[in-house]
Amino acid sequence: MPTDSTTKPPVTVLGLGAMGQALAGALLAAGHPTTVWNRSPGKGDALVARGAVRAASAEEAVRAAELTVICVVDHEAAGAILEPLADALRGRVLVNLTSDTPERSRESAAWAAGHSIAYVGGSVMVPTPLVGTADALLFHSGSQEAFQRHESTLKALGGRTVFVGTDPGLAALYDLSLLDFFYGSISGLVHAYALAAADGVRAVDIAPYLGTIVQILPPIAEYTAENIDAGTYPGDQANLGMMATGVDHILRAARHRGLDVSQLESIKAVADRAIAKGHGGDDWASTVEALRGA
Amino acid sequence: MPTDSTTKPPVTVLGLGAMGQALAGALLAAGHPTTVWNRSPGKGDALVARGAVRAASAEEAVRAAELTVICVVDHEAAGAILEPLADALRGRVLVNLTSDTPERSRESAAWAAGHSIAYVGGSVMVPTPLVGTADALLFHSGSQEAFQRHESTLKALGGRTVFVGTDPGLAALYDLSLLDFFYGSISGLVHAYALAAADGVRAVDIAPYLGTIVQILPPIAEYTAENIDAGTYPGDQANLGMMATGVDHILRAARHRGLDVSQLESIKAVADRAIAKGHGGDDWASTVEALRGA
Repeated sequence: MPTDSTTKPPVTVLGLGAMGQALAGALLAAGHPTTVWNRSPGKGDALVARGAVRAASAEEAVRAAELTVICVVDHEAAGAILEPLADALRGRVLVNLTSDTPERSRESAAWAAGHSIAYVGGSVMVPTPLVGTADALLFHSGSQEAFQRHESTLKALGGRTVFVGTDPGLAALYDLSLLDFFYGSISGLVHAYALAAADGVRAVDIAPYLGTIVQILPPIAEYTAENIDAGTYPGDQANLGMMATGVDHILRAARHRGLDVSQLESIKAVADRAIAKGHGGDDWASTVEALRGA
Repeated sequence: MPTDSTTKPPVTVLGLGAMGQALAGALLAAGHPTTVWNRSPGKGDALVARGAVRAASAEEAVRAAELTVICVVDHEAAGAILEPLADALRGRVLVNLTSDTPERSRESAAWAAGHSIAYVGGSVMVPTPLVGTADALLFHSGSQEAFQRHESTLKALGGRTVFVGTDPGLAALYDLSLLDFFYGSISGLVHAYALAAADGVRAVDIAPYLGTIVQILPPIAEYTAENIDAGTYPGDQANLGMMATGVDHILRAARHRGLDVSQLESIKAVADRAIAKGHGGDDWASTVEALRGA
């Protein structure tokens, strides 16, 4: 082990898909001795050329550092890799950046706890080219002690590395919440372009105006959050009844053009259920009442 | 009629709901002699106090100016008001800012054309407090000659007053396209908060991180537009297959928490249909191929 105080702690990275390679690359760039391993061989040549050590086995890899980071396709794949490594990982720290559900993260954490492995569940919230940059956001949760001990190393993966709680599923929960918003947005986006295209309007003619919508999302996100936490939904400027009419206009126009309207129908149905519960004069945030207990 | 060259042209506003009042208020603020009328009486006192003239009838109102702006709940309501005004409006300009579908706008324009009324269909893309501001976006379409003649007056309603084409339904089409993106986004937003809340995480704890998603939407909107117009969907960083797995994680987590998952199911089904068509390695934009011909 290096004794030079300027030397960064070593790290092991299991899984060299696009994200795993980006993670290992960021650690190398930050000066961490980095050991890499991938289930199928032939990956990581570029990392080795940059100074990474390719381990002959997963066990050799995890024994090369106190901190192991794993990022594979899902927790099932992670489990298949980790299961035989229980002894090698004992007493070490495992940061699992594999995307999956909070439930799967909690199961993985329980397995780790059963083998005296300090477990941190994490989520990388940026695409691979942004990994390691100052703005890159990563959520972590689970063992706060392990996170804090390796925080400076984990910061090499992204400047906005945050610990969101000791429940190991929380990082995944934050991840999925952000993605929930993301997929609603980009699905609406593609549908918007399809609607325009049906009348011969090019998507690039619509695109310049979408900034008008994007710029109102942050204040809406803020007051919607406050309303949902408070459980009160004052409808100041626009109310759910008016907005449901707006959704209905889109729905009719889209149906008239032969487009799939399933997302709009879902949005309309949720709004209508909230209206039926008495929220017609309330803010859009009140639709949360129609999402629960489904 | 005023002869002073510094005097602004007179305008008539029909409909004094929240938006109609905001429109009349912006015209008054810009110095336009403004005549107002509302079907049900008792509205517009504040406007009259600011100098608006309240007409005794809709016919008297439209005869007070060459330009009439109407903004009511939908085109059915607008039609009920306008039908008896055909003679009074003949040779004048009607700007219909009532929100509805492109089809309804085209019907209204056809009615206007049949009575020699110059017709401009429009959409106000900002909430009432922003009407009349430099940043306020309004779409107009229909009679380009009428729009250009009254453009300086219409600019009083919003600095970003744009004419999008001679098809009178285009303003509504642009409007609905932007709203299609908007409702997808805010529905995803509320669902994201519901997902977090199910595990005891407050919406205000999630909200600060949503900016990470918001800031990637403009570049995504841009390249998605280019891909859709080109009909090619190169999957560079993230591909549809990976993203559909991400949607499935949210779906499973949300279902596990007893939340309504209809919007997510719709998004997943569209993605799966696009994958079945061979777009699994393509960009998310390729989902447009699964929206068409529904």
